[in-house]
Order: sequence, then structure tokens, then C-alpha cells
Amino acid sequence: MDIHDAILRSIVKHISISTEERDYFISLLVYKEIPKKTTVLVEAQVCNQLSYINSGALRSYCLDEKGKESTIMFAVADWWLTDMYCFLNEKPSMTFIETIEDSCVLNLSKANFDHLLTTIPKFERFFRILMQNAYTREQLRSIENLTLNAEERYARFISKYPQIANNVTQKQIASYLGITPEFLSLIRKKHRRPK
Amino acid sequence: MDIHDAILRSIVKHISISTEERDYFISLLVYKEIPKKTTVLVEAQVCNQLSYINSGALRSYCLDEKGKESTIMFAVADWWLTDMYCFLNEKPSMTFIETIEDSCVLNLSKANFDHLLTTIPKFERFFRILMQNAYTREQLRSIENLTLNAEERYARFISKYPQIANNVTQKQIASYLGITPEFLSLIRKKHRRPK
Repeated sequence: MDIHDAILRSIVKHISISTEERDYFISLLVYKEIPKKTTVLVEAQVCNQLSYINSGALRSYCLDEKGKESTIMFAVADWWLTDMYCFLNEKPSMTFIETIEDSCVLNLSKANFDHLLTTIPKFERFFRILMQNAYTREQLRSIENLTLNAEERYARFISKYPQIANNVTQKQIASYLGITPEFLSLIRKKHRRPK
Repeated sequence: MDIHDAILRSIVKHISISTEERDYFISLLVYKEIPKKTTVLVEAQVCNQLSYINSGALRSYCLDEKGKESTIMFAVADWWLTDMYCFLNEKPSMTFIETIEDSCVLNLSKANFDHLLTTIPKFERFFRILMQNAYTREQLRSIENLTLNAEERYARFISKYPQIANNVTQKQIASYLGITPEFLSLIRKKHRRPK
């Protein structure tokens, strides 16, 4: 299997591209293998890569002034990840990104992202759908945080992201759900109990 | 001033359109004047309109199972508002939308949104930028909620959205910031105190 198979499949779900367009798109990507537990983006560093995850799992998080960590998002195979605001505006990152497992990513730099959209405008459609999905995912998460209790949010999390739930620590899931690891532990015990 | 002037200005900031394209786009919009304090979208109602706000101010909110209200977003002139997930997927709405002031909106139905993107693909660019801005706004809000204290979040809110801050109730701002109205009142007093 070619390292570009998965990303191309995800593209052609939304737009048709010619062989030349495909080759041009591929020429803009940089393949990278990253070992588990590597920090790939540090807060305050300029964030100029949009990463497509070929395999593995990553997570982005931020720190408050007391150094408390909060997971912003998890990303597994076929997801895209960056600090989007900082990527688009070429600003220092507000978040950290680290690999949870050994991961392979395809990076698109901000300059190449701009070139791509100018050269092949039909990628506007692909990225419109990508941004739209990212926005509605964030919107759903906000609404769920406001309307569901922690137990319901945990149940929804593991049914939506089973692959992530198995690969990250309890502390990371707790910080994503906005609860303490101790409280998550109670919920998990209840969840496992036979009915 | 024509009722379409503002929306056209916001479009041509990002894409160039011909006179025919402009006329076609305008033909898809439905103009509506809505009095203050009108509920325009009710939870569980199918959400099939994307609204451009020509004038006035609106807010979207959700209710938890105990009936507690949380403001999801405010929108003033030149903003777009809908329950995006439900609009795109033609699902029953998870949120309510109401006018805060007398408002004039231009509505684009889901069917016309789809027609527009098929007929004039360069609108993909416009909506890619719109979705991108919406996503990064949500992302920034999440990061601010995790890393800033209530006082800092309030200061940022009034500097970012002065027009909104003057037109909504303290209760609505408090529910947007995720704090009680009493706590917001203390912050506001401190904020007004001469230094």
C-alpha cells in the first residue's frame, strides 16, 4: 500500500481530481514517521503545518497558568490536526501536539496549502467540508458539555471514538471530558458492571 | 442602501463574482424583518435556514434537562447564524435562536445553499473561509475557557464584541461565559472602578 492511498481516498470522496492534479497535490506533502510520546508542536512555536494522520494517534492540549493540562482534541488515522487558528494566521501556537502512539503523518505547510487552493480551486470544496466538519464537531462538543452529564458524555465519547478510548490514558480522557481522573474512574467502573 | 449591499460586500472581500452570478445569488435569498425577542428556531424543529444578519442581533442557546439556559453564540450585523450541524445534516435542531433586538436577516435555505455551491463553485471558497472562521472562533473560545479566568474572559469578550456587550442582558453574557450572573456582576463592578 502506498503512503498516499488513504489521503487520496479521503479526497476523492468529496472531489474528482485528474492524475496531474493528484501528482501535484502529493508533491506538496511531506511524509513523517514520529515515535510514540513525541511532542511535535510546542506552545508559542509558529504553527505552519496541517497534518493528515496516516496511522497512529495524536492529541492536542493546552496548559493553564498553573500548568494544568486540558486535552483539546484527539486525532487518529484519517483525521487532520493542527492548531488551526495559528496555522491559518501564521501565529505562535496556543497548544501543544504530541503523539500518543507511533504515528505516520503527511504534512501540508501553510505556503503549500495556499498554493494548492490557488492552483486547484476545487480543493476549496474539500477544505470547506473539512472545516465544516471540524466546526460542527466543536459545536456538538460544546452543546454536549452544556446539556449532558459526565456519564452521558463518557458514553458518547467511547461510542464515537472507540479507537481513541483504547489508546489514551484515563487522565487524558478525563481532561477531554472536563472531569477529574477519579470521577472518570467511578464512571468506568459503573460502565463495566454487568447489568 | 439596498438590502443586499452588506452581504455582497462581505462576499466580494473573498471572491470576485460577475453581475449574473450576483443576481443569481441574490435570487436565492429571502429577506425577513423580525421583531425583538422573537424565537426564530425552536429545539427539535428541522433547521433548514442559514441566516445572514443585515441588522440587529440574535443569540443561539440550548437548554439542559433541568431547563437551564446556556448561550452558545451571539451574532450581530454581518455575521451568519444557524444550528450548523442540523442545517447541514437536515436534522432537528439542538438549539434555540432568538432575536435580541429588531433584526433584518437574509435567509439561505439548505436546498439553495446546495444549488449555489453546484452552480457557482467559487462560493466554495467563500464558505470554506466562513466555516474556517467559525471553527477557529469555537477553538479559541474553548482554549480561553480552559486557560483564562472568568475576569480575563469577560475582558476579552467586551473588547471583541463591544456591540454585543451593550445589547444583551447580564444573564445572557454570564451564561455565555459559563459563570453565574452574580459573579459577572462582581467582575463588572471591578471593571468599572477607576484605577
